[in-house]
Amino acid sequence: MVGAKEALVVFTPSGRRGRFPVGTPVLQAARSLGVDIDSVCGGRGICGRCQVTVAVGEFAKHGVKSRAENLTPFGAVEEEYCKTQPMDAGRRLSCSTQVLGDVVIDVPSGSQVHRQVVRKAAEAHDIELDPVIRLHFVEVQEPDMHDPSGDLRRLEDALEFEWRLTNLACDVRVLQHLQQALREGGWKVTVAVHGESQIIAVWPGFREHAYGIAIDVGSTTIAAHLCNLATGDVVAAAGIMNPQIRFGEDLMSRVSYVMMNPGGEKEMTDAVRGAINELATDVAQQVGIPATDILEATFVGNPIMHHLLLGINPIELGGAPFALATDRAITLWAVEIDFHIHRNARIYVLPCIAGHVGADTAGVVLAERPDLSEEVTLLVDVGTNAEIVLGNNKRLLACSSPTGPAFEGAQISCGQRAAPGAIERVRVDVATLEPRFKVIGCDLWSDDPAFAAATAATGVTGICGSGIIEILAELYLAGVIRHDGVIKGELAARNPRIQSDGRTFSYEICKAGVGTSSIKVTQNDVRAIQLGKAALYAGVRLLMERMGIEKVDRIRLAGAFGSHIDVKYAMVLGMIPDCALDHVSSAGNAAGTGARIALLDQRSRREIEQLVRRVEKIETAVEPRFQEFFVEAMAIPHLTAPFQRLREAVTLPERTVIHNESSARSRRAARRDPKADIAP
Amino acid sequence: MVGAKEALVVFTPSGRRGRFPVGTPVLQAARSLGVDIDSVCGGRGICGRCQVTVAVGEFAKHGVKSRAENLTPFGAVEEEYCKTQPMDAGRRLSCSTQVLGDVVIDVPSGSQVHRQVVRKAAEAHDIELDPVIRLHFVEVQEPDMHDPSGDLRRLEDALEFEWRLTNLACDVRVLQHLQQALREGGWKVTVAVHGESQIIAVWPGFREHAYGIAIDVGSTTIAAHLCNLATGDVVAAAGIMNPQIRFGEDLMSRVSYVMMNPGGEKEMTDAVRGAINELATDVAQQVGIPATDILEATFVGNPIMHHLLLGINPIELGGAPFALATDRAITLWAVEIDFHIHRNARIYVLPCIAGHVGADTAGVVLAERPDLSEEVTLLVDVGTNAEIVLGNNKRLLACSSPTGPAFEGAQISCGQRAAPGAIERVRVDVATLEPRFKVIGCDLWSDDPAFAAATAATGVTGICGSGIIEILAELYLAGVIRHDGVIKGELAARNPRIQSDGRTFSYEICKAGVGTSSIKVTQNDVRAIQLGKAALYAGVRLLMERMGIEKVDRIRLAGAFGSHIDVKYAMVLGMIPDCALDHVSSAGNAAGTGARIALLDQRSRREIEQLVRRVEKIETAVEPRFQEFFVEAMAIPHLTAPFQRLREAVTLPERTVIHNESSARSRRAARRDPKADIAP
Repeated sequence: MVGAKEALVVFTPSGRRGRFPVGTPVLQAARSLGVDIDSVCGGRGICGRCQVTVAVGEFAKHGVKSRAENLTPFGAVEEEYCKTQPMDAGRRLSCSTQVLGDVVIDVPSGSQVHRQVVRKAAEAHDIELDPVIRLHFVEVQEPDMHDPSGDLRRLEDALEFEWRLTNLACDVRVLQHLQQALREGGWKVTVAVHGESQIIAVWPGFREHAYGIAIDVGSTTIAAHLCNLATGDVVAAAGIMNPQIRFGEDLMSRVSYVMMNPGGEKEMTDAVRGAINELATDVAQQVGIPATDILEATFVGNPIMHHLLLGINPIELGGAPFALATDRAITLWAVEIDFHIHRNARIYVLPCIAGHVGADTAGVVLAERPDLSEEVTLLVDVGTNAEIVLGNNKRLLACSSPTGPAFEGAQISCGQRAAPGAIERVRVDVATLEPRFKVIGCDLWSDDPAFAAATAATGVTGICGSGIIEILAELYLAGVIRHDGVIKGELAARNPRIQSDGRTFSYEICKAGVGTSSIKVTQNDVRAIQLGKAALYAGVRLLMERMGIEKVDRIRLAGAFGSHIDVKYAMVLGMIPDCALDHVSSAGNAAGTGARIALLDQRSRREIEQLVRRVEKIETAVEPRFQEFFVEAMAIPHLTAPFQRLREAVTLPERTVIHNESSARSRRAARRDPKADIAP
Repeated sequence: MVGAKEALVVFTPSGRRGRFPVGTPVLQAARSLGVDIDSVCGGRGICGRCQVTVAVGEFAKHGVKSRAENLTPFGAVEEEYCKTQPMDAGRRLSCSTQVLGDVVIDVPSGSQVHRQVVRKAAEAHDIELDPVIRLHFVEVQEPDMHDPSGDLRRLEDALEFEWRLTNLACDVRVLQHLQQALREGGWKVTVAVHGESQIIAVWPGFREHAYGIAIDVGSTTIAAHLCNLATGDVVAAAGIMNPQIRFGEDLMSRVSYVMMNPGGEKEMTDAVRGAINELATDVAQQVGIPATDILEATFVGNPIMHHLLLGINPIELGGAPFALATDRAITLWAVEIDFHIHRNARIYVLPCIAGHVGADTAGVVLAERPDLSEEVTLLVDVGTNAEIVLGNNKRLLACSSPTGPAFEGAQISCGQRAAPGAIERVRVDVATLEPRFKVIGCDLWSDDPAFAAATAATGVTGICGSGIIEILAELYLAGVIRHDGVIKGELAARNPRIQSDGRTFSYEICKAGVGTSSIKVTQNDVRAIQLGKAALYAGVRLLMERMGIEKVDRIRLAGAFGSHIDVKYAMVLGMIPDCALDHVSSAGNAAGTGARIALLDQRSRREIEQLVRRVEKIETAVEPRFQEFFVEAMAIPHLTAPFQRLREAVTLPERTVIHNESSARSRRAARRDPKADIAP
């Protein structure tokens, strides 16, 4: 077939072009030009990854008159493939299609190895797909008496010949199953290669899918996303309560547990490892695969979660100078953390940044990439500690601020987890001081006549995290709470919801009813939130001062708390600095997104490792200015002009509330977890 | 102290020289010249590894008048060191001694990092000491609030600053104990670094010794040598029966066990791993350390032992085409083979060469290095199969020959293990056809009047491996056995020891006595040995023909069998080709020596890996010439002129018998093992 005649082949969108002898397979032409076309089966017409379309017409730009007839007709291999998998009209398998004349070939994004994975609205940039694991289908030479080379060597020869992979390492755990796989597959096997350097799995025959899992180990919730490594798609997600909670609700109480109970770190390590195994089984079941099909995992978590997951005693993180065992990224085998995914899977743990600024923050930085813009971005991830990152393409600063457990509801009298019946939205009428509210699980406001019936099943049970912020801000805007945080007892005369608790006053949102006790905000609740928000704001101010700026261009709130609160109210309370409201947004579970990026794009690992080295770490505990800022920030800000305008915004209908898809998803995850949002 | 004045310092034996400011420590001068001086403590006067002596006198060659006073006087650091460890007169700690004037400094071999480890007479070359594990004592910067870097990073900084080690990897298992070690040691720790690239252990404070273990996994016996990695000394040795014997005496019966009992390979893997753990504990106890102090291990073994140790099903090695899982060397963690030495120890398994030519043969090749000489060396390791390597610096060939179990005594009627009471030396009088013999455990010949009393406790119980060869050769030389192997029945008339068994005859060496039954050599015994020696010789001939030679320059017999037999008799029987008798010798346990070399000299690993790739592997089973040679070799050679001279040698007193220290050691090891040599 190959003759002296040549044809011009132009690939789009890359624009690469070359002349090839008539009869050259399109895939081969693409490869010789370095055009990015995927293939697992190596041109055998099995995997269908190398699909292209011919662009028909006269292309002056390319100087080509491209015609469908300039490719060989749809052939037997393609027909065979179509029997198992439908193919879009006009699509061709580039491995099984040969060039007959000049053509322009379009490589759709789904056929590219390296492509963009589109992220959700709440997230920042698309993900470059460049997974560390690739599958390769090969035919291996059978052994014979005259060639005593080992099976592994012949497998390596095949990988070199068909895929140009050289100097591959191979673990003993692969070797243990290699011979059986080769014989079971009739010397045709699919090989998973890690980082173009290490054979990590061999299966008999053709195998299409490789899976990876990205896990965010939070102190309260552990969340996992299962991804198809070839497409970048999240194919399953699940959340689970961190079972370490039984050793202590917050991080410090877990470290205390270790201090009081030598060996306690082992119990907590076992607990978290048990949980990640449960999660892996869960997400795998959702797509009908065994957990052992998962070939790669990435992890983020705060330093204490990070250390406990890895079996490192976190005791040094419990006291000054808060020394991490390591601030490097860690690559290890799944078996080393008793993670029962594929027996030879690798784990990548993102680097911690400092003793209080963990791999979760590294994940946030990787998801948000504040270093890519000249704009100054403030990233805030609120938990018992708030991790704060501030910076742009010139400087990056980070610190952790001890906000305490109030934002997680731990010190709020009527606080509860985000579950049906919990108050999540509140409005207080300035004239009457009467509240109306919405509870999770019901779309009606409490002043709707149908509300009682609609919530009869759940009742009104407490206040969830976002509800606390909203009610305090509303009470402040309504004048019930003073600038210094005191609930004005004198208003008891105007509305009986303002009630004396002895020395202080409280505000009753919901009266006791059938099966429901009274739900109040007490003076102590206000104080707890004030302490938390002062700490958060002081941390932010410290970084701003260090960077020499008075204003940030953009604020991104990460984590469950950031996803649920209405940022306007956070600004009313002075939790975050002044910023144009449309430049404040939720980043969703940015830490988890960072883990997912590290899973899907191997180059991102080197990027975040270099990036965290550049971050200037500020230790709030040794900065006298932090104390000053903290004291200053205790009060609730006066309603300056922008805040006065905000007052209007607050009374607007709910559609202005930032409550995106991502937060809804997190909320769903949270609901699976009995302690995810607020615990009493 | 450092002034403008400079002094000339010459180091011997390297001859390196340089001018240094007065006041320069000798160690520092040596390092800046690249002189090979050891140190673990980094110049703190703790380890004593950097000892030197000053060569006093006028050295015209160097142009130096060297005087002891040209070094600072014996100082406080040296006196402190001497309190814990005696130092030879004239020795100085080069780290704590400064140059005051011109000197010639001698670096004794014990102070060199890379030095020769002298091997025993039976072994070939000395070992170059270059252990893959080195210890480094460092002081690590304490963490503080203003430097949030992890402990690992500060440890790495110290290793870079003090030892110029960069880009080190660190396993999670080290991280798990790092923080405690640093604090326990007051920020002074000893670090074990593997291959200048990987931190594998960190201990609080100063630690002097690093240990490694070299293990030869034989199908019958497993032998271990514990080495001090800094000196290269074997500090303990032990042997143990391979517990896999309960699954089958020989290799093929073990493979059959797997075929008949699915999962049986796991049982055998567990068994051998149990045994190596027992051995490690044994050798460690001998020097009073826990097995967990062993930081590195190397292994040799035949392909089936190799696969079973690694947890690879050996079933493919049980039938044609005898495909190995891999013919590469393997590096893995001790935990991966359940080897309970140091939790982060590495294992190096030498490469197998072909399906029947294993890592044990690679060990023999590494120990003997036939590739370094122009002389053609024949290496033979006899067991149920004989592994044969032939070659020189131009070519190397290898094959395995199915000698059967006769040389191990399995098909010999009165065969027994090498234990007190077993006949090991025999002489047959040509005139009278009367035998005299010696048994293990007694130095007297059986015709000594005191023999009966001396052996009363053990009796005479059977014939051990070397005894079989000797008795057959003696009977042949005495004319009792014919060229074709037939025992001459007609001689029954001359001596009643030649007895009819019906169709064939036997020769009675020892008559039944009190508590002792008659010990005979039967016609079947002769046949079994003939089959074995014909296979061995045919293998050798095949390689010789392939190499195009008629004569070998040197023969080295490796393994227990090779250590015990008298090579003259092996030549009389035609087991090995004609060769000058003084060029035939035992190589001792060369496979084990190879493992020890790989343990002590990391460069040797790359050497043997490259060497085995060069070996031309010949599969005897598919070579028609092998069958021809085999048939030809069944007969016992006619006594040609050289053999006639040999006849004289045979009758010489026993001192000509090659029975060196190494073989005596192997014999001792064998005695610990009830099945090591011959099993009935």
